[in-house]
Amino acid sequence: MLFAVKMEVDLPADMDPQVRADTLAREKAYSQELQRAGEWVHIWRCVGQYSNLSVFDVADNARLHEILWNLPLFPYMTIEVTPLTRHPSDIAAS
Amino acid sequence: MLFAVKMEVDLPADMDPQVRADTLAREKAYSQELQRAGEWVHIWRCVGQYSNLSVFDVADNARLHEILWNLPLFPYMTIEVTPLTRHPSDIAAS
Amino acid sequence: MLFAVKMEVDLPADMDPQVRADTLAREKAYSQELQRAGEWVHIWRCVGQYSNLSVFDVADNARLHEILWNLPLFPYMTIEVTPLTRHPSDIAAS
Amino acid sequence: MLFAVKMEVDLPADMDPQVRADTLAREKAYSQELQRAGEWVHIWRCVGQYSNLSVFDVADNARLHEILWNLPLFPYMTIEVTPLTRHPSDIAAS
Amino acid sequence: MLFAVKMEVDLPADMDPQVRADTLAREKAYSQELQRAGEWVHIWRCVGQYSNLSVFDVADNARLHEILWNLPLFPYMTIEVTPLTRHPSDIAAS
Amino acid sequence: MLFAVKMEVDLPADMDPQVRADTLAREKAYSQELQRAGEWVHIWRCVGQYSNLSVFDVADNARLHEILWNLPLFPYMTIEVTPLTRHPSDIAAS
Amino acid sequence: MLFAVKMEVDLPADMDPQVRADTLAREKAYSQELQRAGEWVHIWRCVGQYSNLSVFDVADNARLHEILWNLPLFPYMTIEVTPLTRHPSDIAAS
Amino acid sequence: MLFAVKMEVDLPADMDPQVRADTLAREKAYSQELQRAGEWVHIWRCVGQYSNLSVFDVADNARLHEILWNLPLFPYMTIEVTPLTRHPSDIAAS
Amino acid sequence: MLFAVKMEVDLPADMDPQVRADTLAREKAYSQELQRAGEWVHIWRCVGQYSNLSVFDVADNARLHEILWNLPLFPYMTIEVTPLTRHPSDIAAS
Amino acid sequence: MLFAVKMEVDLPADMDPQVRADTLAREKAYSQELQRAGEWVHIWRCVGQYSNLSVFDVADNARLHEILWNLPLFPYMTIEVTPLTRHPSDIAAS
Repeated sequence: MLFAVKMEVDLPADMDPQVRADTLAREKAYSQELQRAGEWVHIWRCVGQYSNLSVFDVADNARLHEILWNLPLFPYMTIEVTPLTRHPSDIAAS
Repeated sequence: MLFAVKMEVDLPADMDPQVRADTLAREKAYSQELQRAGEWVHIWRCVGQYSNLSVFDVADNARLHEILWNLPLFPYMTIEVTPLTRHPSDIAAS
Repeated sequence: MLFAVKMEVDLPADMDPQVRADTLAREKAYSQELQRAGEWVHIWRCVGQYSNLSVFDVADNARLHEILWNLPLFPYMTIEVTPLTRHPSDIAAS
Repeated sequence: MLFAVKMEVDLPADMDPQVRADTLAREKAYSQELQRAGEWVHIWRCVGQYSNLSVFDVADNARLHEILWNLPLFPYMTIEVTPLTRHPSDIAAS
Repeated sequence: MLFAVKMEVDLPADMDPQVRADTLAREKAYSQELQRAGEWVHIWRCVGQYSNLSVFDVADNARLHEILWNLPLFPYMTIEVTPLTRHPSDIAAS
Repeated sequence: MLFAVKMEVDLPADMDPQVRADTLAREKAYSQELQRAGEWVHIWRCVGQYSNLSVFDVADNARLHEILWNLPLFPYMTIEVTPLTRHPSDIAAS
Repeated sequence: MLFAVKMEVDLPADMDPQVRADTLAREKAYSQELQRAGEWVHIWRCVGQYSNLSVFDVADNARLHEILWNLPLFPYMTIEVTPLTRHPSDIAAS
Repeated sequence: MLFAVKMEVDLPADMDPQVRADTLAREKAYSQELQRAGEWVHIWRCVGQYSNLSVFDVADNARLHEILWNLPLFPYMTIEVTPLTRHPSDIAAS
Repeated sequence: MLFAVKMEVDLPADMDPQVRADTLAREKAYSQELQRAGEWVHIWRCVGQYSNLSVFDVADNARLHEILWNLPLFPYMTIEVTPLTRHPSDIAAS
Repeated sequence: MLFAVKMEVDLPADMDPQVRADTLAREKAYSQELQRAGEWVHIWRCVGQYSNLSVFDVADNARLHEILWNLPLFPYMTIEVTPLTRHPSDIAAS
């Protein structure tokens, strides 16, 4: 089941550099593990923004929430979730 | 070059049924031709909305505008364009 | 899988009274059939508004879209979809 | 009398961990007590958000305010209240 | 039980003058009847706007919705409802 | 001359408890003095919010500003002012 | 008593040219009469907009509403009213 | 050349009282000097707000920016600029 | 004196094709004449939108308003005006 | 390929003066280097704002993101990106 997720990151200016570096490293590892598992299908950087547009393919709402809630950057993110489905004009759906 | 495009459709209630059917048929054919050409990479329906979230892979801004401007449904659409680029956590980019 | 859906209705002032009455009757029958089937779990009127707040329990995103897209009032509605999941404080979840 | 209440939580990044844990524990106990009493009828987590959508069944406006004002997380919440009533299509109302 | 209600009126430019005059007369009579009954406690004109700010004192949500839904101008109104309760600084409450 | 005033309060999380208690006490005394003087005609709590909806009856704009500017909580408030006048359907105006 | 008033005009595309010309002539005469009377103190065109920013000096709220409500263009206007008072830095107030 | 400028002030709660008093004194002197010079034509307090609505008459855009940029309160202000011109109904323009 | 101007065009669906073609031809000629005169310095199409971002270099506010007000498409446009000035980092300004 | 970029700067009130001065100097040098390289085509100050409107001419989305992400003021900026293309009325395009 597909969901578009827009994640905007806003790190505090006075964040401890070591905490920051560690959080970003954990975020990257976490994301890549889910990409390899096939649940985090796409991740694109929005140009000029500290934000990404992602597409998830998950079993259900509960699993999507579990993934997002455990993002190391979750406390610093504004997240927008859009449930998706097949479009009738999609050639892959014909 | 990648762009996310959100298209919201608002057809007039009093649209001639024949014109409507014809416009929708042309929209579908137009979209599928561009999908087959590899420029309209993804098209998803947003659940509960007469709208789609799409991703385009085009040569440049001019080509994206040409594609969108010539959508048969363009006069009835509200369109939002977000330029995308590779995300540093994308495993395909490693 | 649960979704909150807010539906706001805006009927054109010049809608044919017979078409209007027929559409509203079909909307009611459609809603009640889905309520009996257990997919349309809650429907509440928002006070002072021509709108409702509903909760759906459906198999997946595709089914929710199918239900909403086929609402007789769909062309006259503004719809907002919020995916829901169990809350850790929900006593039913303990 | 029914009300939909959307609660968004925003905890300060520098909140003392002990205060935080204590506040969350009190919030959970407070919510569950009201659920058992039948006033806090539904609580759902909004996917990808630190927020919930709840439905309350209370005697009057004054009681709803008393409940919300005394939430341990109240100082950290943005709250939206929507008064609800029976929908004419609700099969439970027939 | 008190509610603040903001009502904004937007009459179509091409409304039949007789229908318009009749609707406005019925709206006035309807409002005054509820004022005399003690349910429509205050009605003020917002300066420079075709809108009013009103306060209702009703038995419950259902009664407020019944009143608002049956306003002759309801189809032409945008309505905002705010549930109110006693303020701790209100001298009438001491 | 009547004005509706919406006051939303946002106290800093780290406000000194003594300063806070003192400010709230002064706010209450200030409000009640103006209520007794007949200038602060109504004050209602908005349900689930740290805010009130008030109605003032003052000599002119200057006096309203003087009252609001000197609220002990003024530095912590977001204030919205709506000038009011008699509504033609008000039975008290007939 | 001073008020800033922003008036945005939106004439229907299919307005009868004679009605339009007549309405605009009456609006101009009405405005100039109030300017000569000293109640409509300033009127400026907002650059690139079919709108004006005006300042009124009137006896009270009721008079301001009477003036605005009777504008020939009132049915086609979106109006925003801001009550003003003397600024402590105004040299005319020293 | 005329411009309407709306200035909203938001001073930090923990601003040093001496710095605050000094900044406000410099702001007042700066404003009054420009009023005397004929460039800051009007300044009104918006009722119930820490903000003003001003009108400037300056040689060009560059001069307006220079004036606003050097306001002692500039770092604490949200500023909105509206270019103005003569209104065809202005009796001073006839 | 420079101004950025964003123009969004919204032509009615039922516009007479001949009127439409004529209006667009006049708009193009009008724009090009002002470009040649050096007042309409830049005009760019916003990708995927029926809108443009333009930069004007005009004598004053009055001239900019005259230009925009007389655009053949003015009645169908939403216009946003931003006054510009030299940026201190502009190498052309060094 | 052209992009309009609006950059709004919001420096923390308590920023170390030396860090601030250094950051601003690096920002200026960075901007001027890109202007000389022909990628940062225009930079204008928005009047009365700590913001600029710029136009970039870059090879692709990736390059634009690289430029913006590395702005010394990036952590303090809100950035809005609008892809541009040739306008059919542009005389330079004939």
